[in-house]
Amino acid sequence: MVRWEPGTRERLQAAAMDLYVSRGFERTTVAEIAQAVGLTERTFFRHFADKREVLFGGQELLEQAFVDGVAAAEPDASPLAMVESALSAAAGFFPAERRSHSRQRQTIIAANPALQERELLKMAALAAVVAAALRARGVPEASATLAAESGVTVFGVAFVKWLAEGERRSFLDIEREVLGELVAMAAGAA
Amino acid sequence: MVRWEPGTRERLQAAAMDLYVSRGFERTTVAEIAQAVGLTERTFFRHFADKREVLFGGQELLEQAFVDGVAAAEPDASPLAMVESALSAAAGFFPAERRSHSRQRQTIIAANPALQERELLKMAALAAVVAAALRARGVPEASATLAAESGVTVFGVAFVKWLAEGERRSFLDIEREVLGELVAMAAGAA
Repeated sequence: MVRWEPGTRERLQAAAMDLYVSRGFERTTVAEIAQAVGLTERTFFRHFADKREVLFGGQELLEQAFVDGVAAAEPDASPLAMVESALSAAAGFFPAERRSHSRQRQTIIAANPALQERELLKMAALAAVVAAALRARGVPEASATLAAESGVTVFGVAFVKWLAEGERRSFLDIEREVLGELVAMAAGAA
Repeated sequence: MVRWEPGTRERLQAAAMDLYVSRGFERTTVAEIAQAVGLTERTFFRHFADKREVLFGGQELLEQAFVDGVAAAEPDASPLAMVESALSAAAGFFPAERRSHSRQRQTIIAANPALQERELLKMAALAAVVAAALRARGVPEASATLAAESGVTVFGVAFVKWLAEGERRSFLDIEREVLGELVAMAAGAA
Protein backbone atom coordinates (compact mmCIF):
# COMPACT_ATOMS: atom_id res chain seq x y z
CA MET A 1 0.00 0.00 0.00
CA VAL A 2 1.26 3.45 -0.89
CA ARG A 3 0.78 5.94 1.87
CA TRP A 4 -0.51 9.22 0.40
CA GLU A 5 1.39 12.03 1.97
CA PRO A 6 -0.39 15.35 1.73
CA GLY A 7 1.71 18.02 0.12
CA THR A 8 4.00 15.65 -1.79
CA ARG A 9 3.05 17.21 -5.10
CA GLU A 10 3.69 20.70 -3.78
CA ARG A 11 7.08 19.71 -2.30
CA LEU A 12 8.13 18.10 -5.59
CA GLN A 13 7.02 21.17 -7.50
CA ALA A 14 8.90 23.59 -5.24
CA ALA A 15 12.07 21.49 -5.41
CA ALA A 16 11.79 21.17 -9.19
CA MET A 17 11.37 24.89 -9.71
CA ASP A 18 14.31 25.75 -7.47
CA LEU A 19 16.45 23.37 -9.53
CA TYR A 20 15.10 24.73 -12.84
CA VAL A 21 16.20 28.21 -11.74
CA SER A 22 19.60 27.23 -10.34
CA ARG A 23 20.67 24.53 -12.84
CA GLY A 24 18.43 25.28 -15.80
CA PHE A 25 15.39 23.31 -16.97
CA GLU A 26 17.22 21.08 -19.45
CA ARG A 27 20.02 20.12 -17.10
CA THR A 28 17.77 19.14 -14.21
CA THR A 29 16.89 15.44 -13.97
CA VAL A 30 13.82 13.89 -12.39
CA ALA A 31 16.16 11.88 -10.15
CA GLU A 32 17.60 15.13 -8.77
CA ILE A 33 14.17 16.59 -8.14
CA ALA A 34 13.03 13.48 -6.27
CA GLN A 35 16.27 13.31 -4.31
CA ALA A 36 15.97 16.93 -3.23
CA VAL A 37 12.85 16.06 -1.24
CA GLY A 38 13.94 12.53 -0.24
CA LEU A 39 11.60 10.73 -2.62
CA THR A 40 11.99 8.36 -5.57
CA GLU A 41 11.61 9.05 -9.29
CA ARG A 42 8.62 6.72 -9.20
CA THR A 43 6.87 9.02 -6.76
CA PHE A 44 7.61 11.99 -9.03
CA PHE A 45 5.96 10.22 -11.95
CA ARG A 46 2.89 9.47 -9.84
CA HIS A 47 2.37 13.24 -9.64
CA PHE A 48 3.74 14.56 -12.94
CA ALA A 49 3.91 13.03 -16.42
CA ASP A 50 7.30 14.70 -16.99
CA LYS A 51 9.53 17.61 -16.00
CA ARG A 52 7.50 20.01 -18.09
CA GLU A 53 4.20 19.24 -16.39
CA VAL A 54 5.61 20.78 -13.21
CA LEU A 55 5.33 24.10 -15.07
CA PHE A 56 2.27 23.50 -17.24
CA GLY A 57 -0.03 21.41 -15.07
CA GLY A 58 -3.34 23.10 -14.28
CA GLN A 59 -3.99 24.27 -17.85
CA GLU A 60 -7.32 22.40 -17.92
CA LEU A 61 -8.44 24.13 -14.72
CA LEU A 62 -7.59 27.56 -16.14
CA GLU A 63 -9.43 26.75 -19.37
CA GLN A 64 -12.44 25.57 -17.34
CA ALA A 65 -12.45 28.85 -15.39
CA PHE A 66 -12.61 30.81 -18.65
CA VAL A 67 -15.38 28.56 -19.97
CA ASP A 68 -17.36 28.84 -16.72
CA GLY A 69 -16.92 32.61 -16.85
CA VAL A 70 -18.35 32.77 -20.37
CA ALA A 71 -21.28 30.61 -19.28
CA ALA A 72 -21.92 32.81 -16.22
CA ALA A 73 -22.36 36.04 -18.21
CA GLU A 74 -25.85 37.56 -18.45
CA PRO A 75 -28.19 36.10 -21.11
CA ASP A 76 -28.04 39.28 -23.20
CA ALA A 77 -24.30 39.90 -22.66
CA SER A 78 -22.21 41.11 -25.60
CA PRO A 79 -19.27 38.93 -26.71
CA LEU A 80 -16.84 41.25 -24.93
CA ALA A 81 -18.96 41.19 -21.75
CA MET A 82 -18.75 37.39 -21.87
CA VAL A 83 -14.98 37.65 -22.18
CA GLU A 84 -14.91 40.10 -19.29
CA SER A 85 -16.79 37.56 -17.18
CA ALA A 86 -14.28 34.88 -18.22
CA LEU A 87 -11.35 37.13 -17.24
CA SER A 88 -12.92 37.70 -13.82
CA ALA A 89 -13.30 33.96 -13.31
CA ALA A 90 -9.68 33.36 -14.32
CA ALA A 91 -8.43 36.00 -11.88
CA GLY A 92 -9.34 33.62 -9.08
CA PHE A 93 -6.34 31.51 -10.07
CA PHE A 94 -3.90 34.28 -9.25
CA PRO A 95 -4.26 35.44 -5.65
CA ALA A 96 -1.48 37.62 -4.23
CA GLU A 97 0.19 34.65 -2.52
CA ARG A 98 0.76 33.01 -5.89
CA ARG A 99 2.72 35.90 -7.31
CA SER A 100 6.20 34.74 -6.23
CA HIS A 101 5.56 31.24 -7.60
CA SER A 102 4.40 32.75 -10.91
CA ARG A 103 7.46 35.01 -11.05
CA GLN A 104 9.76 32.02 -10.54
CA ARG A 105 7.90 30.12 -13.26
CA GLN A 106 8.25 33.09 -15.63
CA THR A 107 12.00 33.26 -15.01
CA ILE A 108 12.34 29.56 -15.87
CA ILE A 109 10.27 29.86 -19.06
CA ALA A 110 12.04 33.03 -20.22
CA ALA A 111 15.36 31.14 -20.11
CA ASN A 112 14.24 28.32 -22.41
CA PRO A 113 12.93 28.77 -25.99
CA ALA A 114 11.17 25.38 -26.03
CA LEU A 115 9.27 26.30 -22.88
CA GLN A 116 8.40 29.69 -24.38
CA GLU A 117 6.93 27.91 -27.39
CA ARG A 118 4.94 25.63 -25.08
CA GLU A 119 3.58 28.69 -23.26
CA LEU A 120 2.56 30.36 -26.54
CA LEU A 121 0.78 27.19 -27.69
CA LYS A 122 -0.97 26.99 -24.32
CA MET A 123 -2.31 30.50 -24.81
CA ALA A 124 -3.44 29.63 -28.36
CA ALA A 125 -5.23 26.56 -27.02
CA LEU A 126 -6.89 28.73 -24.37
CA ALA A 127 -8.13 31.15 -27.03
CA ALA A 128 -9.58 28.24 -29.03
CA VAL A 129 -11.44 26.96 -25.97
CA VAL A 130 -12.84 30.42 -25.20
CA ALA A 131 -13.91 30.90 -28.84
CA ALA A 132 -15.75 27.56 -28.68
CA ALA A 133 -17.50 28.63 -25.46
CA LEU A 134 -18.58 31.88 -27.13
CA ARG A 135 -19.89 30.02 -30.19
CA ALA A 136 -21.81 27.74 -27.85
CA ARG A 137 -23.55 30.89 -26.57
CA GLY A 138 -24.52 31.89 -30.10
CA VAL A 139 -21.72 34.32 -30.94
CA PRO A 140 -20.99 34.06 -34.69
CA GLU A 141 -17.66 32.67 -35.82
CA ALA A 142 -15.52 35.71 -36.62
CA SER A 143 -16.74 37.65 -33.57
CA ALA A 144 -16.12 34.65 -31.34
CA THR A 145 -12.51 34.38 -32.50
CA LEU A 146 -11.92 38.14 -32.25
CA ALA A 147 -13.39 38.32 -28.74
CA ALA A 148 -11.60 35.19 -27.53
CA GLU A 149 -8.21 36.26 -28.89
CA SER A 150 -8.70 39.74 -27.43
CA GLY A 151 -9.56 38.20 -24.06
CA VAL A 152 -6.48 36.00 -24.05
CA THR A 153 -4.33 38.95 -25.10
CA VAL A 154 -5.72 41.00 -22.21
CA PHE A 155 -5.04 38.05 -19.91
CA GLY A 156 -1.45 37.74 -21.15
CA VAL A 157 -0.69 41.47 -20.88
CA ALA A 158 -2.29 41.58 -17.42
CA PHE A 159 -0.22 38.58 -16.36
CA VAL A 160 3.06 40.26 -17.30
CA LYS A 161 2.02 43.45 -15.49
CA TRP A 162 0.96 41.47 -12.40
CA LEU A 163 4.40 39.85 -12.27
CA ALA A 164 6.29 43.15 -12.55
CA GLU A 165 8.54 44.02 -9.65
CA GLY A 166 6.82 46.20 -7.11
CA GLU A 167 3.34 45.57 -8.57
CA ARG A 168 0.81 45.16 -5.72
CA ARG A 169 -2.58 45.46 -7.37
CA SER A 170 -4.79 42.38 -7.70
CA PHE A 171 -4.85 40.38 -10.92
CA LEU A 172 -8.49 41.36 -11.42
CA ASP A 173 -7.76 45.09 -11.11
CA ILE A 174 -4.97 44.80 -13.66
CA GLU A 175 -7.15 42.78 -16.05
CA ARG A 176 -9.78 45.54 -15.86
CA GLU A 177 -7.20 48.21 -16.57
CA VAL A 178 -5.85 46.35 -19.59
CA LEU A 179 -9.33 45.61 -20.95
CA GLY A 180 -10.05 49.33 -20.59
CA GLU A 181 -6.92 50.12 -22.60
CA LEU A 182 -8.05 47.74 -25.34
CA VAL A 183 -11.47 49.37 -25.50
CA ALA A 184 -9.93 52.86 -25.56
CA MET A 185 -7.50 51.83 -28.28
CA ALA A 186 -10.32 50.50 -30.46
CA ALA A 187 -12.50 53.53 -29.75
CA GLY A 188 -9.70 55.80 -30.99
CA ALA A 189 -10.06 54.18 -34.41
CA ALA A 190 -13.86 54.34 -34.59
CA MET B 1 29.08 25.66 -62.70
CA VAL B 2 25.47 25.17 -61.72
CA ARG B 3 23.07 26.53 -64.28
CA TRP B 4 20.31 28.48 -62.50
CA GLU B 5 17.02 27.52 -64.03
CA PRO B 6 14.33 30.10 -63.42
CA GLY B 7 11.23 28.72 -61.79
CA THR B 8 12.96 25.74 -60.18
CA ARG B 9 11.92 26.83 -56.72
CA GLU B 10 8.31 27.27 -57.83
CA ARG B 11 8.25 23.86 -59.55
CA LEU B 12 9.67 22.17 -56.45
CA GLN B 13 7.14 23.94 -54.28
CA ALA B 14 4.18 22.97 -56.46
CA ALA B 15 5.31 19.33 -56.60
CA ALA B 16 5.90 19.23 -52.84
CA MET B 17 2.49 20.64 -52.04
CA ASP B 18 0.72 18.21 -54.37
CA LEU B 19 2.52 15.35 -52.60
CA TYR B 20 1.77 16.76 -49.14
CA VAL B 21 -1.93 16.75 -50.05
CA SER B 22 -2.01 13.33 -51.70
CA ARG B 23 0.40 11.37 -49.47
CA GLY B 24 0.47 13.51 -46.33
CA PHE B 25 3.27 15.79 -45.16
CA GLU B 26 5.01 13.24 -42.94
CA ARG B 27 5.04 10.47 -45.52
CA THR B 28 6.45 12.58 -48.33
CA THR B 29 10.23 12.43 -48.79
CA VAL B 30 12.49 15.07 -50.29
CA ALA B 31 13.63 12.43 -52.81
CA GLU B 32 10.05 12.03 -54.02
CA ILE B 33 9.57 15.78 -54.35
CA ALA B 34 12.77 16.15 -56.38
CA GLN B 35 11.92 13.13 -58.52
CA ALA B 36 8.47 14.51 -59.32
CA VAL B 37 10.08 17.41 -61.20
CA GLY B 38 13.09 15.47 -62.51
CA LEU B 39 15.60 17.04 -60.12
CA THR B 40 17.93 15.80 -57.40
CA GLU B 41 17.59 16.06 -53.62
CA ARG B 42 20.64 18.29 -53.70
CA THR B 43 18.79 20.78 -55.88
CA PHE B 44 15.86 20.73 -53.43
CA PHE B 45 18.20 21.60 -50.58
CA ARG B 46 19.64 24.50 -52.55
CA HIS B 47 16.16 26.04 -52.45
CA PHE B 48 14.71 24.85 -49.14
CA ALA B 49 16.29 24.00 -45.80
CA ASP B 50 13.78 21.18 -45.29
CA LYS B 51 10.30 19.90 -46.20
CA ARG B 52 8.71 22.36 -43.82
CA GLU B 53 10.26 25.43 -45.39
CA VAL B 54 8.22 24.77 -48.53
CA LEU B 55 5.23 25.80 -46.42
CA PHE B 56 6.77 28.41 -44.12
CA GLY B 57 9.28 30.22 -46.29
CA GLY B 58 8.53 33.89 -46.77
CA GLN B 59 7.81 34.57 -43.08
CA GLU B 60 10.53 37.25 -42.98
CA LEU B 61 9.02 39.04 -45.97
CA LEU B 62 5.58 39.07 -44.37
CA GLU B 63 7.05 40.38 -41.10
CA GLN B 64 8.90 43.07 -43.04
CA ALA B 65 5.67 44.14 -44.75
CA PHE B 66 4.01 44.58 -41.34
CA VAL B 67 7.02 46.53 -40.04
CA ASP B 68 7.12 48.74 -43.14
CA GLY B 69 3.39 49.33 -42.76
CA VAL B 70 3.84 50.50 -39.17
CA ALA B 71 6.66 52.81 -40.26
CA ALA B 72 4.56 54.24 -43.11
CA ALA B 73 1.70 55.40 -40.87
CA GLU B 74 1.22 59.15 -40.34
CA PRO B 75 3.41 60.80 -37.65
CA ASP B 76 0.42 61.35 -35.34
CA ALA B 77 -1.23 58.00 -36.06
CA SER B 78 -2.82 56.12 -33.15
CA PRO B 79 -1.49 52.61 -32.37
CA LEU B 80 -4.48 51.05 -34.11
CA ALA B 81 -4.00 53.30 -37.16
CA MET B 82 -0.40 52.05 -37.32
CA VAL B 83 -1.70 48.50 -37.21
CA GLU B 84 -4.23 49.30 -39.92
CA SER B 85 -1.38 50.56 -42.08
CA ALA B 86 0.53 47.33 -41.38
CA LEU B 87 -2.48 45.22 -42.35
CA SER B 88 -2.79 47.13 -45.63
CA ALA B 89 0.87 46.50 -46.39
CA ALA B 90 0.49 42.79 -45.63
CA ALA B 91 -2.52 42.49 -47.93
CA GLY B 92 -0.15 42.93 -50.87
CA PHE B 93 1.09 39.39 -50.19
CA PHE B 94 -2.28 37.88 -50.94
CA PRO B 95 -3.48 38.82 -54.43
CA ALA B 96 -6.43 36.86 -55.85
CA GLU B 97 -4.13 34.57 -57.84
CA ARG B 98 -2.55 33.34 -54.64
CA ARG B 99 -5.81 32.12 -53.13
CA SER B 100 -5.70 28.56 -54.48
CA HIS B 101 -2.09 28.12 -53.34
CA SER B 102 -3.04 29.39 -49.87
CA ARG B 103 -6.05 27.07 -49.73
CA GLN B 104 -3.86 24.08 -50.57
CA ARG B 105 -1.37 25.14 -47.91
CA GLN B 106 -4.18 25.45 -45.35
CA THR B 107 -5.42 21.93 -46.18
CA ILE B 108 -1.93 20.53 -45.60
CA ILE B 109 -1.46 22.36 -42.29
CA ALA B 110 -4.93 21.45 -41.01
CA ALA B 111 -4.06 17.76 -41.45
CA ASN B 112 -0.92 17.88 -39.31
CA PRO B 113 -0.80 19.00 -35.64
CA ALA B 114 2.95 19.75 -35.72
CA LEU B 115 2.43 22.07 -38.70
CA GLN B 116 -0.49 23.72 -36.91
CA GLU B 117 1.80 24.40 -33.95
CA ARG B 118 4.39 25.87 -36.30
CA GLU B 119 1.74 28.14 -37.82
CA LEU B 120 0.61 29.34 -34.38
CA LEU B 121 4.20 30.08 -33.38
CA LYS B 122 4.69 31.94 -36.65
CA MET B 123 1.74 34.16 -35.81
CA ALA B 124 3.08 34.75 -32.29
CA ALA B 125 6.45 35.72 -33.74
CA LEU B 126 4.71 38.11 -36.12
CA ALA B 127 2.87 39.76 -33.23
CA ALA B 128 6.17 40.20 -31.36
CA VAL B 129 7.75 41.87 -34.41
CA VAL B 130 4.79 44.23 -34.85
CA ALA B 131 4.83 45.11 -31.13
CA ALA B 132 8.54 45.96 -31.42
CA ALA B 133 7.82 48.17 -34.45
CA LEU B 134 5.10 49.99 -32.50
CA ARG B 135 7.40 50.49 -29.51
CA ALA B 136 10.00 51.89 -31.90
CA ARG B 137 7.40 54.51 -32.84
CA GLY B 138 6.91 55.44 -29.21
CA VAL B 139 3.83 53.37 -28.35
CA PRO B 140 4.08 52.34 -24.67
CA GLU B 141 4.56 48.69 -23.83
CA ALA B 142 1.08 47.42 -22.93
CA SER B 143 -0.60 49.33 -25.77
CA ALA B 144 1.99 48.07 -28.25
CA THR B 145 1.30 44.46 -27.31
CA LEU B 146 -2.48 44.94 -27.32
CA ALA B 147 -2.43 46.66 -30.71
CA ALA B 148 0.00 44.17 -32.25
CA GLU B 149 -1.90 41.12 -31.00
CA SER B 150 -5.17 42.66 -32.19
CA GLY B 151 -3.65 43.29 -35.58
CA VAL B 152 -2.40 39.74 -35.94
CA THR B 153 -5.77 38.42 -34.79
CA VAL B 154 -7.50 40.52 -37.45
CA PHE B 155 -4.99 39.24 -39.99
CA GLY B 156 -5.64 35.60 -38.98
CA VAL B 157 -9.43 35.93 -39.01
CA ALA B 158 -9.28 37.75 -42.36
CA PHE B 159 -7.04 35.03 -43.75
CA VAL B 160 -9.51 32.26 -42.86
CA LYS B 161 -12.37 34.27 -44.39
CA TRP B 162 -10.37 34.98 -47.54
CA LEU B 163 -9.77 31.24 -47.99
CA ALA B 164 -13.45 30.32 -47.57
CA GLU B 165 -15.06 28.61 -50.52
CA GLY B 166 -16.81 31.05 -52.82
CA GLU B 167 -15.16 34.10 -51.21
CA ARG B 168 -14.23 36.61 -53.93
CA ARG B 169 -13.46 39.83 -52.06
CA SER B 170 -9.89 41.09 -51.84
CA PHE B 171 -7.77 40.35 -48.79
CA LEU B 172 -7.68 44.08 -48.01
CA ASP B 173 -11.47 44.42 -48.09
CA ILE B 174 -11.83 41.47 -45.73
CA GLU B 175 -9.16 42.84 -43.37
CA ARG B 176 -11.06 46.13 -43.22
CA GLU B 177 -14.32 44.35 -42.47
CA VAL B 178 -12.73 42.31 -39.66
CA LEU B 179 -10.99 45.34 -38.17
CA GLY B 180 -14.37 47.09 -38.22
CA GLU B 181 -15.88 44.15 -36.33
CA LEU B 182 -13.15 44.38 -33.72
CA VAL B 183 -13.74 48.10 -33.25
CA ALA B 184 -17.51 47.58 -33.03
CA MET B 185 -17.06 44.77 -30.52
CA ALA B 186 -14.86 46.93 -28.30
CA ALA B 187 -17.21 49.92 -28.67
CA GLY B 188 -20.09 47.78 -27.41
CA ALA B 189 -18.23 47.43 -24.11
CA ALA B 190 -17.30 51.10 -23.74
